[in-house]
Amino acid sequence: MKVNGTHYRSLWWDADKDALQIIDQRWLPHEFRVLQVNSLKDFADAIVEMRVRGAPLIGVTAAYGMAHAMRLDPSDAAMDQAWEYLDATRPTAINLRWALNRSRNILRGVTPKDRASVALKLAHDLADEDVEINRKIGIHGLELIRKISNSKPSGEPVRLLTHCNAGWLATVDWGTATSPMYHAHDAEIPIHVWVDETRPRNQGALTAWELGSHGISHSYITDNAGGHLMQHGQVDLVITGTDRTTRRGDVCNKIGTYLKALAAQDNNIPFYVALPSPTIDWSVDDGVAEIPIEERSGVEITHVQGKMADGSLGTTQVTPDGTLGGNPAFDVTPNRLVTGLITERGVCDASTEGLSTLFPDLVNAP
Amino acid sequence: MKVNGTHYRSLWWDADKDALQIIDQRWLPHEFRVLQVNSLKDFADAIVEMRVRGAPLIGVTAAYGMAHAMRLDPSDAAMDQAWEYLDATRPTAINLRWALNRSRNILRGVTPKDRASVALKLAHDLADEDVEINRKIGIHGLELIRKISNSKPSGEPVRLLTHCNAGWLATVDWGTATSPMYHAHDAEIPIHVWVDETRPRNQGALTAWELGSHGISHSYITDNAGGHLMQHGQVDLVITGTDRTTRRGDVCNKIGTYLKALAAQDNNIPFYVALPSPTIDWSVDDGVAEIPIEERSGVEITHVQGKMADGSLGTTQVTPDGTLGGNPAFDVTPNRLVTGLITERGVCDASTEGLSTLFPDLVNAP
Repeated sequence: MKVNGTHYRSLWWDADKDALQIIDQRWLPHEFRVLQVNSLKDFADAIVEMRVRGAPLIGVTAAYGMAHAMRLDPSDAAMDQAWEYLDATRPTAINLRWALNRSRNILRGVTPKDRASVALKLAHDLADEDVEINRKIGIHGLELIRKISNSKPSGEPVRLLTHCNAGWLATVDWGTATSPMYHAHDAEIPIHVWVDETRPRNQGALTAWELGSHGISHSYITDNAGGHLMQHGQVDLVITGTDRTTRRGDVCNKIGTYLKALAAQDNNIPFYVALPSPTIDWSVDDGVAEIPIEERSGVEITHVQGKMADGSLGTTQVTPDGTLGGNPAFDVTPNRLVTGLITERGVCDASTEGLSTLFPDLVNAP
Repeated sequence: MKVNGTHYRSLWWDADKDALQIIDQRWLPHEFRVLQVNSLKDFADAIVEMRVRGAPLIGVTAAYGMAHAMRLDPSDAAMDQAWEYLDATRPTAINLRWALNRSRNILRGVTPKDRASVALKLAHDLADEDVEINRKIGIHGLELIRKISNSKPSGEPVRLLTHCNAGWLATVDWGTATSPMYHAHDAEIPIHVWVDETRPRNQGALTAWELGSHGISHSYITDNAGGHLMQHGQVDLVITGTDRTTRRGDVCNKIGTYLKALAAQDNNIPFYVALPSPTIDWSVDDGVAEIPIEERSGVEITHVQGKMADGSLGTTQVTPDGTLGGNPAFDVTPNRLVTGLITERGVCDASTEGLSTLFPDLVNAP
């Protein structure tokens, strides 16, 4: 999407420099910085330190990481080593392993001398695929927004609520949860987006930056506020993303998503989850029982990053010295709370039946 | 409760200085500062700027404010003016108006020359009453904790979750929601408290400071985390405070409380609210429909206060330049989500019947 009038993807291959360029998201929303990724450690750090973040973008980044490794050493041993190294960077994002497996499976059938070029082409293809998937999610989600808009007085905005950043910065372009919003805006349907700040890392600030850059009306709210807004008829539709979706439609997304789903149910507000099919983990059924939740450093809670009075970036300590933070990074929203799933193939119920109808080719795949 | 081994109340009258002393809570949890209140504007500022905060403490502070006004000018006009001035400081806290009305009603029956001393004595009495009320809340709440503890293997802590700071800093002493915790700790029942950070003002940091000062095991968590912890059996009991309770037991408390109540219900976890009876607004029935919610400055969300790397206090800007924050400060938890109310007269159902049984003298008062 656009930044200061120029269209960007969140990462791209620079043919002149023969290297991957990423938007270093740790500086956003305050500074727009581009970073060249030069080593396998750079790739891993980019994921671990959340210079790139969001399940789809992590997957594509990992595929470029495999390509990088193949250029240095196209042996089976190097391939497996790179797979292990990159797979260990984040435990929750299913796309990470999906992309790594896809890369390795293809490369195993290729002679070592061709692996570098094949792996690089595959990474390019994954990036393009991601863009196309998200564009389609947007087209399907647009119809949900259009229907609500048609039921309102002319000019009255559809009020959406979203949690975390499932925006274009979390993908290669369009975003998942935001793609319907961008499509609605481009179709001149008036919308207003309530953006959860999404503690502890405040990814809502990225969403606010994205939406602001694209000219979409929005308000930044605390994660605490959504229930109150829903009680008072201020929310028409919730759309979030997901890091991992189970075969029965449970949704593992940024911590706090579950609370918004409960509030939506309590107030009869539709709660949709936008997801590219690589996010579906067909091997998992009961998300609460089966998905391990990443526990991140408590410092992410006790210290908050932002722009200081002098314009520099820094952190401030919110808690007393010595206070320990507990920091589970994701939670699971059971399918019973999810009105529907917005995928690249259409919208379906959050159930095995619903997903099977749209993805008959994947549901029984090994 | 104790600070560095010395017992403090959150405010006290210094007879030598002939003036009210308050703990200036804007510096907490980083610095412990005591402030002398010298003018009616100081009193109002102390409430508006949240140097004192929490419904009970605001009420007592306002009573001292009335006493201050009567020392300067004990006329009816000055009394009414002080009432108006102090009443306008915060719209939600029912205790504020309750304390102001109580003061004015008594002072109207007193000749002007005696008003200063009567008003001061009343403020002292209100402070002492608050301490005694909260002590009793703790004794009643203690039994809920003890019962859970008795059902667990020996030594395993009762895990409580609380939202905001309904601690001794929000009252004169003991706190409301925390009083059962302090009593349990003092009774050597092992407990662990999950402390919601409570965005946007992070009052959880005050609760963490309080609990740490008293030696109670606790973890500081994001407001997003509680649902996940409940899903995984990590919470045995929720206790929050309330700024205003309706006659049917709806609870208006810090924004986000409603979301925790929904999660508690979804996971069959008892959700209790601790309240002194002055918090009950017998004139309101349906809290969601009837209670106006204070909308505070969006800057509280876009900028976060804390201790900087150099040890000074300051703020950091989390959002992009120009992002607008929406900041409703409270929400209402409907009585259907509240397991029970812990009052100074015992524990009751969150219903008109429940409250009537404990407060037959108040339920039909004009």
